Amino acid sequence: MNIESIKRPSLVIDTLKVNGNIQKFIKKAKVNKVLFRPHFKTHQSERIGELFRKQGIDKIAVSSISMAKVFVKNAWSDITIAFPFNIREVRELKQLTKFVRINTLISAPEQIVVLKNISQFQTGFFIKIDTGMHRTGFEPFQIKEIEEILTIGKMNKKLIFKGFLSHFGHTYQAQNKEQVELIYKSSVSELQKLKKKFEKQYPTIIITIGDTPSCSILKDLKGTDEIRPGNFVYYDLMQMKLGSCTENEIAAIVACPVIDKNLNRNELLIYGGAVHLSKEYIIDSQGNKSFGSIVELNETGWSKSVRGTFLKSISQEHGIVQCNPEFLSKINVGDLIGILPVHSCLTAHLLKENTLFINT
Amino acid sequence: MNIESIKRPSLVIDTLKVNGNIQKFIKKAKVNKVLFRPHFKTHQSERIGELFRKQGIDKIAVSSISMAKVFVKNAWSDITIAFPFNIREVRELKQLTKFVRINTLISAPEQIVVLKNISQFQTGFFIKIDTGMHRTGFEPFQIKEIEEILTIGKMNKKLIFKGFLSHFGHTYQAQNKEQVELIYKSSVSELQKLKKKFEKQYPTIIITIGDTPSCSILKDLKGTDEIRPGNFVYYDLMQMKLGSCTENEIAAIVACPVIDKNLNRNELLIYGGAVHLSKEYIIDSQGNKSFGSIVELNETGWSKSVRGTFLKSISQEHGIVQCNPEFLSKINVGDLIGILPVHSCLTAHLLKENTLFINT
Repeated sequence: MNIESIKRPSLVIDTLKVNGNIQKFIKKAKVNKVLFRPHFKTHQSERIGELFRKQGIDKIAVSSISMAKVFVKNAWSDITIAFPFNIREVRELKQLTKFVRINTLISAPEQIVVLKNISQFQTGFFIKIDTGMHRTGFEPFQIKEIEEILTIGKMNKKLIFKGFLSHFGHTYQAQNKEQVELIYKSSVSELQKLKKKFEKQYPTIIITIGDTPSCSILKDLKGTDEIRPGNFVYYDLMQMKLGSCTENEIAAIVACPVIDKNLNRNELLIYGGAVHLSKEYIIDSQGNKSFGSIVELNETGWSKSVRGTFLKSISQEHGIVQCNPEFLSKINVGDLIGILPVHSCLTAHLLKENTLFINT
Repeated sequence: MNIESIKRPSLVIDTLKVNGNIQKFIKKAKVNKVLFRPHFKTHQSERIGELFRKQGIDKIAVSSISMAKVFVKNAWSDITIAFPFNIREVRELKQLTKFVRINTLISAPEQIVVLKNISQFQTGFFIKIDTGMHRTGFEPFQIKEIEEILTIGKMNKKLIFKGFLSHFGHTYQAQNKEQVELIYKSSVSELQKLKKKFEKQYPTIIITIGDTPSCSILKDLKGTDEIRPGNFVYYDLMQMKLGSCTENEIAAIVACPVIDKNLNRNELLIYGGAVHLSKEYIIDSQGNKSFGSIVELNETGWSKSVRGTFLKSISQEHGIVQCNPEFLSKINVGDLIGILPVHSCLTAHLLKENTLFINT
């Protein structure tokens, strides 16, 4: 199977670029002496998992118990489920802890109570700390609440407190690198204070943080013990806009058939819409609302993004590409074009069953 | 399997409501003497297909050749693929026309040329007309271009010109019912002129139109011959906002586990995010950006939407529900709540493998 044989919207993964992105993070983690536990929610792919394994990675993060099950089947045996424990899946979690090393995440006392009651096999738990994203977790000053969790945890010897987990997701709203740095530094400083407070009692606890923008942009990851980025494996336009990557590091595109051309409006209609790309958009450097940049496909992959050309709107299965006239004149009905995705996590999820790997 | 056994974000379909929505359209089509060819892209479900069949429907529309294949397997034998012909799938189309009655859609001369060259079995084709949505299709004044298509079509006797197909998708941007009516009337009038021009030569041609807002809101569907709405089968908040349906007609919700509660911010964290609901949002009547309204689940289905309570943000797997304090106090970690979706087509697509039918 090669790109030219694609008939329907398909994710094309350049494994050379993926390997480059993995290497970059392995090196960065080594220089900074932090543990690298990649988050597999972006790719959710057995095959991409193997690329990590070949480079020596043996600890991963996932975002659901279902996803953990998939990777346990693929012989991953040290998994942090970086999503607060869903107590409705207690049986599924119990089953997993029988066979592999699982770390759970606690954001509420009800979760640790259930965990305490069911754990028969060693199970790690992190406490989720909210350093400003305000999605979930205890705020760093909620010492009493954190102690309550630890007290309940201690009632079952199989439960091992692993430390504090945070996701600086508010970096995705940052306007520039400086803002990302500020968020990182203030967040890590809060986590450090917590760690100091509890490490006398729990000397092995760590700080684990997660977001791709921080982990990509910061050279110095001082103050953290483990990083769990996920999005970096493919990167995307949103990450590029934040300054996390160059366009050349974006490792995934969606190849889409051209259905028709409108010469009056300088538009291409493509087979490729919200069910393939998701409805995420960015405001691009020209101020356009863009659902993706456009690349030309070639034998080894794809070109740089075509200037003045972007995916301007999408419906369920259709996309409309606004084109510069020169590009438009080169493209024929039935050709394939490539879309650099806005948010590769969602796009890769949507096209999980429809993925082509190149440069393997 | 019942609602209470749900562990992960799941689509819950109330088949009583679905049957009601189907009946309403069958009746409307009958009164208006138009053919009813429901679009199956919203549900993509064999089981929902059976509900249509039980009510006497035997002609359907789909939005891709892949989707046509699914329903051919389920013994549907009269299918309009209401998406312009993707010439990269010529082999797949050819295969389909061997066994069942297929209507294709033409929006460019290149498509009819391919169709002419490959058609060995009778195949219908519609010409796509753009009455103002500006996504794809010929504009009603492009008579020369339309004649060019027909001339090529005539070269293969297996190709049968069926008429003009349009989708008034710009009704989705309408601000009220009056605007929907205006769009409908001006669009149909354009299509009527075209039909008159060509029906001497092609006496059996029809006008087929597609959007749920028009077909729901207009009492009088004068001027059209066939309707192909899809979204009406489940409806959703977007349709409700347009005036296409009442809340009680929304036939699908997403049941989501409650992960934790934040009493300071009056929020619930739920397991349920962009990979379950899509990133579509509306501005609700209070001016909030809302990714869904909230309902309480009960034995027979779900309650009315809870006032002052809505899904205020989503990431890949997380959702944050802004709550009125009274509702918040009733909900516990581990409970399930229901989300009325913003756009049921995308939500149903995302949860295809994770659907529960109730009131069957």
